[in-house]
Amino acid sequence: MIKVLRLGHRRGRDDRISTHVGLTARQWGAKEVVFSGEKDDKMLESQRDIIERWGGHTEVRYNEDWKSEIRGFEGLKVHLTMYGLKLDDELENLKKQFKDDLLVVIGSEKVPRWVYHNVDYNISVGNQPHSEIAALAVFMDRLKGIRESFDGAKVWVEPSETEKYTRKQ
Amino acid sequence: MIKVLRLGHRRGRDDRISTHVGLTARQWGAKEVVFSGEKDDKMLESQRDIIERWGGHTEVRYNEDWKSEIRGFEGLKVHLTMYGLKLDDELENLKKQFKDDLLVVIGSEKVPRWVYHNVDYNISVGNQPHSEIAALAVFMDRLKGIRESFDGAKVWVEPSETEKYTRKQ
Repeated sequence: MIKVLRLGHRRGRDDRISTHVGLTARQWGAKEVVFSGEKDDKMLESQRDIIERWGGHTEVRYNEDWKSEIRGFEGLKVHLTMYGLKLDDELENLKKQFKDDLLVVIGSEKVPRWVYHNVDYNISVGNQPHSEIAALAVFMDRLKGIRESFDGAKVWVEPSETEKYTRKQ
Repeated sequence: MIKVLRLGHRRGRDDRISTHVGLTARQWGAKEVVFSGEKDDKMLESQRDIIERWGGHTEVRYNEDWKSEIRGFEGLKVHLTMYGLKLDDELENLKKQFKDDLLVVIGSEKVPRWVYHNVDYNISVGNQPHSEIAALAVFMDRLKGIRESFDGAKVWVEPSETEKYTRKQ
């Protein structure tokens, strides 16, 4: 089971970024996406609507007590940060340690030091000013690739060279 | 030369998304990032400030006439869209065709049909509701990997297992 924990959501300012985090987590196979920070039912609902239509059963939820999501997790815990060890150097090691359960923690502007000390790895996807969406996508892509199957979909895309084709159930 | 063209920027609503686009383009090796849509000097300036401090000379600019960026480009032109052909299927072909010059076009909510018909490839990074940031990052990562060298940096990260270390010039 893959879980993504997104820290420090701010209503309004982060709506679209957090939505991209959710879409990205789903596209690369997360079973759960947990948001902390400010509670934002509208943002969660809009993601649930997308999942309802496009399938795949990813669960999206809020938890104010984000530390419990890290503490209570059994499996590999990775925090993505521009300050961490290079993904290129750690990937083979991470692949070996990734069995079934993975928690990926991604931040906001300021991630508490507690996070750095309570995960198994702090990993950077480029030691540069950082898009947490890009970092999440590339980390998941390197570790396991794109998820292609989304069961229960009411609508899906028919890949096309030049057109926008969707099919409906 | 790699150029990223981001269509349809909206002031206010897209500030943070467009900033993530710029950071991602830079991290995966773009020499130029062009924004169209609403002109937004503040968004451009904040990206230039980051590049000034962190190095690498990526040029960030605005062009209202975005069609000219596509028409006038000599080299491989790829539009990333959830409706396109699967990246997994096209990657080897794209790698063969990518010599030195690459234009990556990424959208906003509604991308004009003109774009689909005036690029060499419409490619999907997962045929699912789409983060253009995630799509850009993974596409570039698969095609050429992370850029590691940013010359002229005034500040840089010392990768660390558990700490946030920066070094200054």
